Amino acid sequence: MDLDLSVQLEGVRSKHPLVHHITNYVTVNDCANICICAGGSPVMTDALEDVVDMVCIANALVINMGTLNPRTVDAMLLAGRTAKKKGVTVIFDPVGAGATAYRNTVADAIIRGVKPDIIKGNDGEIAYLMGVEGGVRGVDSAGPTEDSGDHVLSLAKKLGCVVASTGKVDHVSDGKNVYELSNGCGMQGNVSGTGCMVSSVVGCYAGANGANAESVVSAITAFNIAAENAEKVSKGPGTFKASLMDCMFGLKDSDLTKAKIRTL
Amino acid sequence: MDLDLSVQLEGVRSKHPLVHHITNYVTVNDCANICICAGGSPVMTDALEDVVDMVCIANALVINMGTLNPRTVDAMLLAGRTAKKKGVTVIFDPVGAGATAYRNTVADAIIRGVKPDIIKGNDGEIAYLMGVEGGVRGVDSAGPTEDSGDHVLSLAKKLGCVVASTGKVDHVSDGKNVYELSNGCGMQGNVSGTGCMVSSVVGCYAGANGANAESVVSAITAFNIAAENAEKVSKGPGTFKASLMDCMFGLKDSDLTKAKIRTL
Amino acid sequence: MDLDLSVQLEGVRSKHPLVHHITNYVTVNDCANICICAGGSPVMTDALEDVVDMVCIANALVINMGTLNPRTVDAMLLAGRTAKKKGVTVIFDPVGAGATAYRNTVADAIIRGVKPDIIKGNDGEIAYLMGVEGGVRGVDSAGPTEDSGDHVLSLAKKLGCVVASTGKVDHVSDGKNVYELSNGCGMQGNVSGTGCMVSSVVGCYAGANGANAESVVSAITAFNIAAENAEKVSKGPGTFKASLMDCMFGLKDSDLTKAKIRTL
Repeated sequence: MDLDLSVQLEGVRSKHPLVHHITNYVTVNDCANICICAGGSPVMTDALEDVVDMVCIANALVINMGTLNPRTVDAMLLAGRTAKKKGVTVIFDPVGAGATAYRNTVADAIIRGVKPDIIKGNDGEIAYLMGVEGGVRGVDSAGPTEDSGDHVLSLAKKLGCVVASTGKVDHVSDGKNVYELSNGCGMQGNVSGTGCMVSSVVGCYAGANGANAESVVSAITAFNIAAENAEKVSKGPGTFKASLMDCMFGLKDSDLTKAKIRTL
Repeated sequence: MDLDLSVQLEGVRSKHPLVHHITNYVTVNDCANICICAGGSPVMTDALEDVVDMVCIANALVINMGTLNPRTVDAMLLAGRTAKKKGVTVIFDPVGAGATAYRNTVADAIIRGVKPDIIKGNDGEIAYLMGVEGGVRGVDSAGPTEDSGDHVLSLAKKLGCVVASTGKVDHVSDGKNVYELSNGCGMQGNVSGTGCMVSSVVGCYAGANGANAESVVSAITAFNIAAENAEKVSKGPGTFKASLMDCMFGLKDSDLTKAKIRTL
Repeated sequence: MDLDLSVQLEGVRSKHPLVHHITNYVTVNDCANICICAGGSPVMTDALEDVVDMVCIANALVINMGTLNPRTVDAMLLAGRTAKKKGVTVIFDPVGAGATAYRNTVADAIIRGVKPDIIKGNDGEIAYLMGVEGGVRGVDSAGPTEDSGDHVLSLAKKLGCVVASTGKVDHVSDGKNVYELSNGCGMQGNVSGTGCMVSSVVGCYAGANGANAESVVSAITAFNIAAENAEKVSKGPGTFKASLMDCMFGLKDSDLTKAKIRTL
């Protein structure tokens, strides 16, 4: 992979992309803050009356289905379709796909109706989208999956988009290559919304640098290195979350040399 | 009370209960994070279309009425009734009961319609449920109540459930005994949502260890000891909240020896 | 300006005003916590069924349009009109006014229909309300505005209320005088919701000390000095936010001597 992580980082910070989120009310504040810390400018709005205008001035749209209701699902579909028409990159995080019938129906409606440019889920959610049941418990992955590399490749080919699956190791594919990303730390699993935050950071990178595997790999790796740095200076999940923001904001070129990216 | 706090703690951490929350949008993120730090796995969803499937795979359901609207109230009732049918423990936090007619009506509808296994409120809310007016200001208790021990006993008898009332001192009753819990620290009153967080921790303990007074006493005491530890290493409400998560996550058997539990 | 910041601070802490918020789900938790740290008591509720009862026992109502939908807009209008009838101070934060047609329509409906006592926005939002287009990007100001002092004076005169415009330098006017406030720090721009938090603190001060320019100037200055103190002890946006709460809570009379307030 021909990838300059420093150029990617500088791209986000200099372009300061406006990232429109339609997301859940559980982790929305952390998504807004990590977006700022990554170099982007977040805006959250989910009214049918508001989303068309907002997405038209945005550089990316992040649709996250952590909490759903019919009103916001309609807004996701409307904003998503508008984004695609206008050439605004759409990132979809199918939170809890595989856990309930409603989530499965909505995930399907968004994938078919919007055709997101990038899908980012945890291993269990991506496995479900590939037809593998039983990998999701609530909104968390039920456990490690050995087939994530295969899943992202197959799903990316099938849907014609970039797919990322996060877990102990992360996998990204554009339907041709599969990239294995091995940064990150154990503490990420002890904070609600680290997956949502990753999607927001992907929104920043794709909004600034393009809807491609390079942006997704760069975003996940930058976030995971920030998490590694944060773990070193924190005493538990609470101080870790605060430090994660600090470390994302203060990420330096020299930090990016810790990247562990491998083409499979 | 025949209670081994270490066994209770280990029960939560080993069983990793899935705790479904239908809760307010003010403190929901803190509830999710304290749930993880206590050893549970949180999931938040409030769509009528989603709650039945979700509660059926959960170990406990926490209904918190901090912010209400007709759509989510319907979801609370549906999820609550489903939980009871399926044997999933229901915890109810009647936030702001006594402050407005709508909150009073909803609290009544949930108590009658769902018959929660556990009710956890602040002194003012529990007093209101026992017919004592004037104890609630907004969503906070208007001041210390001397009758909390009597209130929890009477309400537990009347409703046939476990009742907890939190304040400077906390009281728990199963309708037979009353337990007085004296852990905790002043800083808890300076952070929004510490009461909501307690209810989430109760959800973890009851989901893992059973819907009984022992679980409730253990949950409140564990949370309050974590708060005492957090106060020692923090400089104000902001750093206290972060440290509260750290200290809940890192709670040790040796911390549990600080428990102050008395049977009245 | 005849202003004793210590008396203002003591007023909030001793009267402990109940501040009813109808606000966005992005920064609502930070608003609740900064309200407590400033000396107030926050309550958040947005159901049509609940807002009339709640606002009648409140000392101030903060309407913040960060995230909107038709249900909550109706609640804002109902609560706002009720507040005005009952003499409860109304603070309006027109988040994102100028960015979308829906936000513009709602801002207009609230200003005409409620007649807020105090309007607090960022430079771009206040410029929009004065008929100057192009100053808003998403929910953020598009850049520094040189005319903020003129804008607050004109808008305050036109609407007969107190107007505050925040940016690198803040301006407040009651339609007669214009006050320039120069406290604050760069880190405030790196945390989502610092503007919303300011509005909540204004709610505390106006609820305790009256709906006038003195309260607004005191609130903004207290918040900005707390932010200066927080920046000194933090390492980035995450630890800054936690410290901001600490420093607001621990604000001392001696800190208030750092105030930079100038009558233009």
